[in-house]
Amino acid sequence: MTATVGVLLSGCGVFDGAEIHEAVLTLLFLDRAGATSRCMAPDAAQMHVINHLTQEITDERRNVLVESARIARGAIQDVGTVSAADLDALIIPGGFGAAKNLSDFAVKGPKANVHPEVRRLLNDMAAAGKPIGAICIAPATLTLALADRQPDVTIGSDAATAAAIEAIGGRHHTCTVDMIQVDERNRLVSTPAYMLGPGIKDVATGIEKLVARIMAMITA
Amino acid sequence: MTATVGVLLSGCGVFDGAEIHEAVLTLLFLDRAGATSRCMAPDAAQMHVINHLTQEITDERRNVLVESARIARGAIQDVGTVSAADLDALIIPGGFGAAKNLSDFAVKGPKANVHPEVRRLLNDMAAAGKPIGAICIAPATLTLALADRQPDVTIGSDAATAAAIEAIGGRHHTCTVDMIQVDERNRLVSTPAYMLGPGIKDVATGIEKLVARIMAMITA
Repeated sequence: MTATVGVLLSGCGVFDGAEIHEAVLTLLFLDRAGATSRCMAPDAAQMHVINHLTQEITDERRNVLVESARIARGAIQDVGTVSAADLDALIIPGGFGAAKNLSDFAVKGPKANVHPEVRRLLNDMAAAGKPIGAICIAPATLTLALADRQPDVTIGSDAATAAAIEAIGGRHHTCTVDMIQVDERNRLVSTPAYMLGPGIKDVATGIEKLVARIMAMITA
Repeated sequence: MTATVGVLLSGCGVFDGAEIHEAVLTLLFLDRAGATSRCMAPDAAQMHVINHLTQEITDERRNVLVESARIARGAIQDVGTVSAADLDALIIPGGFGAAKNLSDFAVKGPKANVHPEVRRLLNDMAAAGKPIGAICIAPATLTLALADRQPDVTIGSDAATAAAIEAIGGRHHTCTVDMIQVDERNRLVSTPAYMLGPGIKDVATGIEKLVARIMAMITA
């Protein structure tokens, strides 16, 4: 049996969507591990469209699902149509989209809300004991969704973000970019990725470990 | 001395820009090989903006450089400002953008034109004996730019595309996705990637070989 692992995207680009390197590396390591990836994203307007050359907010409007489809080469579905029963595990790449489009943590911090379909799927996955991986800033949204479970996560070492995660009810653990934080109780794995960087090969080391641990949890 | 390798992007998304997986894998393997990547793209309107969920052409307008900046996390420059003297080698990921925005091969075939700044840089690189890698459909644009040199390239095994490359003056060699085609005379390396697929791990194998050969050519 091939494992089916959901990859929850949040747009296409580090400043307003899913971090592209993190998303592609997740797909690479899942494929190498023999898993089938199933990409998904919310069918909703992006919070922002950022010109990635100038970093300015533009007046464009783009849809999270439509832009995420660029990373997925068209093979993607609305997260609202995905059930926890469809998946063996779920991984959330980072990028500002994970904190702008999956929740609004980037602007509201501990008072943020999680997209309702994202909240539903994350809670159903956790209730079913299915592993969830979260990369970069995505652990903040994961903590918001699963606050009742007091998740143990990392976003690296940024003090303000770590404090916000603790304020939500999570427990933050400092990690370097080549490390993963494992919450065995809740079956969660997180890694700092581009919260620390500096480069793609460094980020790849942590993401490869995260995927390996998620795959091990599926079969454990 | 760290090698500096240009990565010539053509947008952000397989149907209207640079193929995202191929571009990210190129950056990964260059970083692992100890090279410094230098991303660039034409400052020009995209030929198309395709909705990657439905594959329909939209009436949106997007700029190749601005969208390419998503893959480059903002660290990118106009190809018109890059000189062959700045680079030790150049790699062109595929995606329709390589045949819609770097040239118009996707719609004009052998009668296509190459973007003038792309043509200039490719000819200057070849004249300086600096290696050039081309992935997926990008060898078609490379052949257009360097037709006088009768480049030996591969785009995999698609008969119509191979015939078009021969019509331009190139020499096409059938390859599988895990192979590279090496033109020692012109110092060119090509690999089929998503012209064949099927998956990201297969594409990664060919791209890793291409990067390794380009790096070996730099020091040879």
